[in-house]
Amino acid sequence: MPVLLSAEQAPTLEQLLSFLQTQGLQAQLVDQTAASIKIQGIGSLQNAGGTEISFLSNPQWRTQLTTCQAAAVIMTAADYQSLSDKPPYAVVLFEQPYLMYALLAQWFDQSRIQTLPTGIHPTAVIDPSASIADDVHIGPHCVIEAHVTIGAGSRIGAGCVIGNASSLGKNALLHAGVKIYHQIQIADRVILHSGCVIGADGFGFAPHPEGGWAKIAQIGSVRIGNDVEIGANTTVDRGALDDTVIADGVKLDNQIMVGHNVHIGTQTAIAACVGIAGSTQIGARCIVGGAAMISGHLQICDDVQISGGTAVTSSIKKPGRYSGVYPYAEHKDWQYNAAVISQLSQLRKRVRDLERHDQKQKHK
Amino acid sequence: MPVLLSAEQAPTLEQLLSFLQTQGLQAQLVDQTAASIKIQGIGSLQNAGGTEISFLSNPQWRTQLTTCQAAAVIMTAADYQSLSDKPPYAVVLFEQPYLMYALLAQWFDQSRIQTLPTGIHPTAVIDPSASIADDVHIGPHCVIEAHVTIGAGSRIGAGCVIGNASSLGKNALLHAGVKIYHQIQIADRVILHSGCVIGADGFGFAPHPEGGWAKIAQIGSVRIGNDVEIGANTTVDRGALDDTVIADGVKLDNQIMVGHNVHIGTQTAIAACVGIAGSTQIGARCIVGGAAMISGHLQICDDVQISGGTAVTSSIKKPGRYSGVYPYAEHKDWQYNAAVISQLSQLRKRVRDLERHDQKQKHK
Amino acid sequence: MPVLLSAEQAPTLEQLLSFLQTQGLQAQLVDQTAASIKIQGIGSLQNAGGTEISFLSNPQWRTQLTTCQAAAVIMTAADYQSLSDKPPYAVVLFEQPYLMYALLAQWFDQSRIQTLPTGIHPTAVIDPSASIADDVHIGPHCVIEAHVTIGAGSRIGAGCVIGNASSLGKNALLHAGVKIYHQIQIADRVILHSGCVIGADGFGFAPHPEGGWAKIAQIGSVRIGNDVEIGANTTVDRGALDDTVIADGVKLDNQIMVGHNVHIGTQTAIAACVGIAGSTQIGARCIVGGAAMISGHLQICDDVQISGGTAVTSSIKKPGRYSGVYPYAEHKDWQYNAAVISQLSQLRKRVRDLERHDQKQKHK
Repeated sequence: MPVLLSAEQAPTLEQLLSFLQTQGLQAQLVDQTAASIKIQGIGSLQNAGGTEISFLSNPQWRTQLTTCQAAAVIMTAADYQSLSDKPPYAVVLFEQPYLMYALLAQWFDQSRIQTLPTGIHPTAVIDPSASIADDVHIGPHCVIEAHVTIGAGSRIGAGCVIGNASSLGKNALLHAGVKIYHQIQIADRVILHSGCVIGADGFGFAPHPEGGWAKIAQIGSVRIGNDVEIGANTTVDRGALDDTVIADGVKLDNQIMVGHNVHIGTQTAIAACVGIAGSTQIGARCIVGGAAMISGHLQICDDVQISGGTAVTSSIKKPGRYSGVYPYAEHKDWQYNAAVISQLSQLRKRVRDLERHDQKQKHK
Repeated sequence: MPVLLSAEQAPTLEQLLSFLQTQGLQAQLVDQTAASIKIQGIGSLQNAGGTEISFLSNPQWRTQLTTCQAAAVIMTAADYQSLSDKPPYAVVLFEQPYLMYALLAQWFDQSRIQTLPTGIHPTAVIDPSASIADDVHIGPHCVIEAHVTIGAGSRIGAGCVIGNASSLGKNALLHAGVKIYHQIQIADRVILHSGCVIGADGFGFAPHPEGGWAKIAQIGSVRIGNDVEIGANTTVDRGALDDTVIADGVKLDNQIMVGHNVHIGTQTAIAACVGIAGSTQIGARCIVGGAAMISGHLQICDDVQISGGTAVTSSIKKPGRYSGVYPYAEHKDWQYNAAVISQLSQLRKRVRDLERHDQKQKHK
Repeated sequence: MPVLLSAEQAPTLEQLLSFLQTQGLQAQLVDQTAASIKIQGIGSLQNAGGTEISFLSNPQWRTQLTTCQAAAVIMTAADYQSLSDKPPYAVVLFEQPYLMYALLAQWFDQSRIQTLPTGIHPTAVIDPSASIADDVHIGPHCVIEAHVTIGAGSRIGAGCVIGNASSLGKNALLHAGVKIYHQIQIADRVILHSGCVIGADGFGFAPHPEGGWAKIAQIGSVRIGNDVEIGANTTVDRGALDDTVIADGVKLDNQIMVGHNVHIGTQTAIAACVGIAGSTQIGARCIVGGAAMISGHLQICDDVQISGGTAVTSSIKKPGRYSGVYPYAEHKDWQYNAAVISQLSQLRKRVRDLERHDQKQKHK
């Protein structure tokens, strides 16, 4: 339902398809006369209105195609052939409707949001030794410390702090209030959301013989690759001796904790509230569900999927899906079952005793 | 024990009771001569001193009534009748002592905290297109972007950022360092604590045919109703296409993660560290215990209580209490039981085999 | 591998050992001719280069001693005697290599990081009633409200906010963007990392007879002892009536939630993502693993270790280690076992029936 652009600003269907072509996506319009329709926004099959484009990404929602009010719908050839009647909307054929939706949403988002002006806000505090490319935007009340470098096209929201000698690549986007400690290396096209903290000290203490803890200074750093996105209030700690590493294309959701010396492999995606303890290595193309917890010093190989809430307490050497969350129940039922859990080894012993006795009976 | 006001500033018991009357609470003083006692603060039965008021909210603490040192105690008529002797403190009769305590604590809190002056601090950066009511307080180093509207009586702490075209209702209280993204709608009397982030991008990516992830721009928004309170470092993501919605009277504690397109119904209260994955709908008047995790795309009906730590992985259609946390134990005992858990289906099979054999024996 | 200092800045081995002596650590050099070797940094046995010092903290890594490329290695006498050949590096004998590493890392860290200049940045907003010691550093865009006191030698990073009447002791280090509410008391040598929030309101509401929730103003405070370190984005709520207390020497990692009126005893260390609900008391010298959740109103005695991910739902009265995390498995295996968990009490009943029947058979 969100009509994003006014009728004057809205592109025609043809213009949208041309944009997609520049992104390498070749979509087909079933009826060429629809090319001039103006598209003001994008919506779900259920909610899209008469000036919006929608998409069918899953055959299970095919029934919604008959009631959909959109101006145009993206669908696969198979879904189109499943229609018994000619639909009232324009049909755009493409084999990956979800991907096309992703790129269209990017297009509309960029069209409606005012492009941030380049330049440094007068209230920002920039150390003279910092090296900042020409077309960068630095918002109000930012602090850029000594020897920082910021690449071309980067946009830094209000109140961000970038510590001594850290570097930020090209076309980065830091939302308001990101905190980056000293000597952190961040590559190109990285997106960091508000409240995320990169490079705080890892949790390292040695027991002191006189009692208490001696702090182990964390002299490693954090290296973040290209095209990484990190969600709001996520924290990535700096390494103890070597670096914490987030490889190219990694996507981290909100409120994730990445401990010191963790390595996360390329294109791995991790949902919110996950904690990863120190020195664990996660492979490439893994998917970790929300609120999973991963112990320290583990090795998780490439192409592993971890279900939400799972506590991973040992290394995983085989690709595949792993789970471990305890099923919930109505409180009373849960109480009965929970009581048995504390006696499981006893229960197994009772079964063993029965088996032994049963065995003896047989041999009588 | 915290004596909040000096003797000169302290109200009499009568003045406090008049204030409560304006709030619709009709309390009774057992002995009218106590009306002129000065009350400097509020304390627990155990710790309240001779110039403070206390309260009994639970009959199980009745024994503390005999040793309590407070100047006055709020209790129910039943609790009062349970006393064998006339107590040394003034007795205030009211059937909901806990509610009266809540309102008295508000009164004392507001009396001791300096009212923030209205006006905009000279270091705040306010876009000229923003529309700000007259008696608003905006603290140092705030950033108010273009087309923002802020209603009468709202107080914005130091270093808050409110993004392009967002709106804030009347009498809102934003503590220092709150970050609100663009186009967010927040209603009246909302309290947001430090570090909370409203409207960051939801976690949406489409797999790209050439590998990696295409970002799905999050073009929905967040709508927050009246009287909502959101705790420190909690994050509420903006919707993908439609909006994320927090209804009137919802209370969220610290470090909660609300995913994109989640709906939370009126007056639902959620304790700290809870994660709610995308598109889940939670009904009205629910109570969710701390560190619970709720999967995405679920429907949880009204009046559901979820115990702390429970992983809710399927929809809940019946009001009531649900639980699912695994009982802990001494490490050794836990090791024995945990080992059995991995063999549960095997254990069940063994029981089945025994039953079958037992059955056969019977029929011999 | 991180060479931290240039050859000119690097200390000799002898200078490092003298520094350690000032810290009460008496180490011995096996071969005095090595005293003049320049040490530019510190590294792990595997990664340290020819200008760095390393250490063996665990006999299980003894095999790495034969391939280590470091300029010098710290080890125990026993580890040294285990060597069959004279190693190519200088050997420093000390019985607690890990502790020595901790102190050396501190030394190198402080040597490389530019000492923050004392003084108040001109963009900081300081209330005239605040009392600030002479040699304090206050960074850009900080806000220090009325009646705040800050002790000698403290360093406050960019964008920190310290609320009305709060006090900070000597030699504190606040990284960028820490938010401290009003009337909070913080002692000496405390380290607070970016994004941590101290003194937000505890989660307290009384059900209102007309529906919804009445806020219980949180009129207690937070008291933080000496030598406490608190990680990035951790939140410590203020007390309802009395104070939340973090005792001397406590170490809290990132993204921890400490509820109102919690007490944490001296030298207790808590790993990331732990939630502690209101009014719980944790003893001294406890260690809590990551992502553990601790219910409210519990008492946990001194010297308790809680494994990561454990849900502690009842008080612990005996020192020792406690665990409770559910073992994960490959998804299919997990599905089989999870299904049985919901039927555990039934399974126990079936075993009981078999036992009873078995008993009868015997007595026939």
